[in-house]
Amino acid sequence: MTESSLPDLQTIQEAETRIRPYLQETPALTVSDLNALMEGPLWLKLENLQRTGSFKARGALNWVLGADEDELRDGLVTVSAGNHALALAWAAAQRKTHLTVVMPEGSSPLKIRRTEALGADVIIRGTIQEAVAHCHALRDKQGLTLVHPYNDPRVMAGQGTVGLELLRQCPDMKRVICPIGGGGLISGLGLALKSERPDVELIGVEPEGAATMRNAWDRNDADAALDTVETWAASLAPAVVGNHTFAATRQVVDHIVTVTEAGIRQATQHLLSDAHLFVEPGASVGLAALLENKAAFSPDETVLVLTGANLDLEQVVRCLD
Amino acid sequence: MTESSLPDLQTIQEAETRIRPYLQETPALTVSDLNALMEGPLWLKLENLQRTGSFKARGALNWVLGADEDELRDGLVTVSAGNHALALAWAAAQRKTHLTVVMPEGSSPLKIRRTEALGADVIIRGTIQEAVAHCHALRDKQGLTLVHPYNDPRVMAGQGTVGLELLRQCPDMKRVICPIGGGGLISGLGLALKSERPDVELIGVEPEGAATMRNAWDRNDADAALDTVETWAASLAPAVVGNHTFAATRQVVDHIVTVTEAGIRQATQHLLSDAHLFVEPGASVGLAALLENKAAFSPDETVLVLTGANLDLEQVVRCLD
Repeated sequence: MTESSLPDLQTIQEAETRIRPYLQETPALTVSDLNALMEGPLWLKLENLQRTGSFKARGALNWVLGADEDELRDGLVTVSAGNHALALAWAAAQRKTHLTVVMPEGSSPLKIRRTEALGADVIIRGTIQEAVAHCHALRDKQGLTLVHPYNDPRVMAGQGTVGLELLRQCPDMKRVICPIGGGGLISGLGLALKSERPDVELIGVEPEGAATMRNAWDRNDADAALDTVETWAASLAPAVVGNHTFAATRQVVDHIVTVTEAGIRQATQHLLSDAHLFVEPGASVGLAALLENKAAFSPDETVLVLTGANLDLEQVVRCLD
Repeated sequence: MTESSLPDLQTIQEAETRIRPYLQETPALTVSDLNALMEGPLWLKLENLQRTGSFKARGALNWVLGADEDELRDGLVTVSAGNHALALAWAAAQRKTHLTVVMPEGSSPLKIRRTEALGADVIIRGTIQEAVAHCHALRDKQGLTLVHPYNDPRVMAGQGTVGLELLRQCPDMKRVICPIGGGGLISGLGLALKSERPDVELIGVEPEGAATMRNAWDRNDADAALDTVETWAASLAPAVVGNHTFAATRQVVDHIVTVTEAGIRQATQHLLSDAHLFVEPGASVGLAALLENKAAFSPDETVLVLTGANLDLEQVVRCLD
């Protein structure tokens, strides 16, 4: 994978033009009670308010709207236990294309229900590895087109539109703190951001128990897989990143830091009770990094990207108890 | 009570000048997934993001900042099971004035804990009637100054600053839907709104089980008390309104409608899961009115005021189950 195949600023601007009729700009704002906790204004980019409850709607829609008829004819398939499934189900419906989602056993009942409600077929299949294998089998045997959750330049370009919005909304920003799962969001966001504002520091955050990108960086190997990933932040737990997101993060991310499970729980609680926002644990790792002093906080210059809102009741109970 | 003692536009503008250094404007925005449910953009005024988690911070702060030394010298007292307690505790701390809050037994442990954390003394005393009696006794015997949660022109003027913000934020609005508890918010908001935009329809919403203002209107008696008030929307359950809020609502509120408990539960669930906002049941009655067809919805012209975010875990469980 060469860097030249990564989306550039123009590609991300084209993605924005493509998705804008369907997806409004999400707010970037500060919340007083959270500012009181932090002792200064902390900017929040509210991708939890995005359509289908996460930033994933951007990349999925950009992929679907940019696809040609051949790619759509026999339908789409993906493997996802969560936000990508919801987002792609919604995006596929915009072009009346059929989607099959393979989810591993134990997936959130809420996300299964919502994905089906958006019109997709959901197949529950074994472990995540078995689910991936079944997804590949559907691609190979039924001719379905696979839409990868993050390691796809079209998906990354869609996520990059978050960066374009931040350039307009937070002109005084000096630091952006962004969760890393497979790395699609931070890659796209960073490619947009750094092309205009190379002075802005971009910090990626992973859970200690799922530091997949950190591990790939340390081994200088995009395919380096962790033996196990375990974290409450289920949306940030890929076993492996990808060649595109590996290359992009090496290019645009300044630091990757990791946060503890206790820190994630505490940060989620603060986002619910102080920011008054309904966010999932994966959205809270950036705040956890600040609270654990893994990243520096400069009032009015620091932006946290809150990635998603798809929180089960059980998770609320675990975090507020 | 004559209408002339109600706050006018200038008084509310002065309140805004007074409180602005401490309280930022809250956002007015739409949320895509909620728009999808409603099949059109619905504007939300996010007082749930206000300092201390509700609009009450405005009125409490305006009262405290406008008080003279005599009123503050021996400290303040109030009776409240919720948002006014939090707001006044915070406001009192801004002028280093002591506050005693009397709460009835069974008050939310979360709100007790948060009120104490803001520096107030909390006394738990019997029923709401007994709590009120104890509050009055503290006023009479210890010389504490009582700050009423809603029936006070200075408090109403503070709440009215929500109306000033809406005039700037939603110039195309045709209808504002606002919860009624004791009526302080809708009174202040309406006095500001109607002085500039008499064409905007202002609809108040009460729970069926606590339609205190509706009852006072029907009897044309500000002191008309309901025998019992019972609703899940605890922040909207006063036994009686007040002469000031009665007079103001008669002047500026076009209709009062009531919503069912099932409707409140469903609307709260939609605000959590579709608007992705952490709101209390009392904040959801406006959406309940739309969903129960008690109020009309015109896309892009309808504003819902979301009043507060102080939600206990137990309430989340009851609403998402």
